[in-house]
Amino acid sequence: MNKAPLYYFDHAAATPLDERVLAAMQPYFTELFFNPSSPYAPAVAVRREYEAAKDTLARTIGARGSELVITAGATESINLAFKSIGGHVVVGATEHQAVLSAAKFCKSASYVQPDNTGLFSAELIARTIRADTELVSIALANNELGTVQPLAAIAAVVERERQRRREHSEVTPLYFHSDASQGLGQLDVHVARLGVDMLTINAAKVYGPKQVGLLWAAPHVQLSPVIVGGGQERGVRSGTENVAGVIGFSRAMVLASEHRHGEAKRLSTLRNTAQSMLEAALPDIEIYGNQKKRLSSHLSLSLPGVDAERLVFKLERQGVYVATGSACAANKGTRSHVLEAIGLNDRQINGSLRLSFGRLTDEKAVREGIKFIIAAFKQEQDRVGKKA
Amino acid sequence: MNKAPLYYFDHAAATPLDERVLAAMQPYFTELFFNPSSPYAPAVAVRREYEAAKDTLARTIGARGSELVITAGATESINLAFKSIGGHVVVGATEHQAVLSAAKFCKSASYVQPDNTGLFSAELIARTIRADTELVSIALANNELGTVQPLAAIAAVVERERQRRREHSEVTPLYFHSDASQGLGQLDVHVARLGVDMLTINAAKVYGPKQVGLLWAAPHVQLSPVIVGGGQERGVRSGTENVAGVIGFSRAMVLASEHRHGEAKRLSTLRNTAQSMLEAALPDIEIYGNQKKRLSSHLSLSLPGVDAERLVFKLERQGVYVATGSACAANKGTRSHVLEAIGLNDRQINGSLRLSFGRLTDEKAVREGIKFIIAAFKQEQDRVGKKA
Repeated sequence: MNKAPLYYFDHAAATPLDERVLAAMQPYFTELFFNPSSPYAPAVAVRREYEAAKDTLARTIGARGSELVITAGATESINLAFKSIGGHVVVGATEHQAVLSAAKFCKSASYVQPDNTGLFSAELIARTIRADTELVSIALANNELGTVQPLAAIAAVVERERQRRREHSEVTPLYFHSDASQGLGQLDVHVARLGVDMLTINAAKVYGPKQVGLLWAAPHVQLSPVIVGGGQERGVRSGTENVAGVIGFSRAMVLASEHRHGEAKRLSTLRNTAQSMLEAALPDIEIYGNQKKRLSSHLSLSLPGVDAERLVFKLERQGVYVATGSACAANKGTRSHVLEAIGLNDRQINGSLRLSFGRLTDEKAVREGIKFIIAAFKQEQDRVGKKA
Repeated sequence: MNKAPLYYFDHAAATPLDERVLAAMQPYFTELFFNPSSPYAPAVAVRREYEAAKDTLARTIGARGSELVITAGATESINLAFKSIGGHVVVGATEHQAVLSAAKFCKSASYVQPDNTGLFSAELIARTIRADTELVSIALANNELGTVQPLAAIAAVVERERQRRREHSEVTPLYFHSDASQGLGQLDVHVARLGVDMLTINAAKVYGPKQVGLLWAAPHVQLSPVIVGGGQERGVRSGTENVAGVIGFSRAMVLASEHRHGEAKRLSTLRNTAQSMLEAALPDIEIYGNQKKRLSSHLSLSLPGVDAERLVFKLERQGVYVATGSACAANKGTRSHVLEAIGLNDRQINGSLRLSFGRLTDEKAVREGIKFIIAAFKQEQDRVGKKA
């Protein structure tokens, strides 16, 4: 990471591959390249290392290797979770586009609205669950706001409904799925403690390789494959196994778990410094997301009336890289459905930035980078003010 | 590749990542790790490099970058090709398991039998096509036998049926798909010259990275996504783009194209040497696949009555790595459906080996490795003979 960007405040969009993770993967690119389904000793050894890496990876989330389905990333994992569902689904209105798109392929879907901090109410979800609901899907933390959801409380209402169905001899299954990719390395991501039946995580969000993720499913969940063929991954996801990817994913998750407490605290301090600097310098700034239940890494904000797209391009010249919820940022001509769902108006959304801190961030980067952001905001305010 | 195995004769199962390909990918693991959908300059540059690599990759098969859908490998590409098909499909009985499995999800399927060399007859395919057939899928070369299929002739019968439909104002579409993964680096894989409407290829078969493949589809083909979400790859395959993977795939295909003629000739000479040595030493040996239309890399054979699984384990101790069509080889307790389809009996299948040569193979490796194989065959013959 010699050429790491100075003020990279977009760890929620992508993380660099950790050098230790890359080192662990390297032998599997070249000398240990064998197909794990081949019969001779070195290929069988690769198969064992693959399975061992899955076991290690599984332990970081309190699961077993045999319960994991390795995929090409969170989007495929989410598709797999929804593929098995025939009936009605309940999803958050601020969920990732993969969840919203996959939900459309189910029989019917209800979209739960969050409060104005992006938080979902377990009781509102309870009221949205119907007798034919088969899946509730809520991400552990929102990727734009950083708001951390009350998964244990949601799991309890799901279990309450399952109890009701058992008592009435209703056989419709009900599962609880969560995409926990955004919480990795900061929150306790443990399937039993979260209370989920299915969990999606993504290596690319935790300094692991891109194009590898997993779906954990409890043994009672019947999965239907999205991709069929040679029958790899218990027949649920065909295709030659991604050995290097899983070795790297496993190493990345172990590193993230080991340093979780310290890193969450460190990021929280940095984020609070950034927030204080911005609030002190810009009286009109608005901070979004739940201030009590929020990822340490995230800072979602807006200076209403300012054009955040212009800001992004101004800041990039100083080596400051941030995201915005306004049109161009998503590169798809659409504005953030998350910011809309928490009730922000056009001026607020157009002026919005998301800063997400991570391993490339230190105090110096925050102090210098935030000064650039403050200066840019002030210039934009002046420009807009003069035009008005 | 310092620790390359001495007698690796299983290039059809897996190829090592070329060092030049790995070098091209390396920057995208670390300093150029940005999400290509992010708005700031270095991410936009990564997006441009991704698209440029797709263009280069496309040119190696005579296509355009915008016509490619990048996937996690051949299996996913094949699933995507079949996902769009509502009606009847015609597939070869010796196709890859991904094709056979994907065909089951279509409305109905007919399985065309090859001749005893594994070759398909275009006229037999013509007779199998029905008025409601929407897809014909035949791999460019069989991965066990190496038999190269007459794709241009098959394309002609597909076009003949399309012509008939146009004349009768029938609107049912008919597409021709081929998985050309096994021919890469040896055959001319050019979409127009092959006459296909859809083409699958896989980086892992051509010394590129694993877990990346593509489906090329002609502009007139309407694809339905297998994986939905953020709408990447023209909305047909969602998930953050695999930048390093595509950079590597592109480099691997360029290298393969540049050296194709020389390498095909070199492998053909090595394979013929191996075949002559085996035939001279083992009078009972049987050679399979089409001797005129065969990949240069492939040598499929059997010594009926011998237990090839024992042979694989005996040979691995001498560093000779080969595949067999008998039960254990596939690690799934099933025998080769390809060898069954060309009419081989149990004794023939149980005694079968597949040797596939490639960049790790030189003349010394062939001469020494084949001597080990001959000696092992003879020992097994003696052992079986004594028991009988």
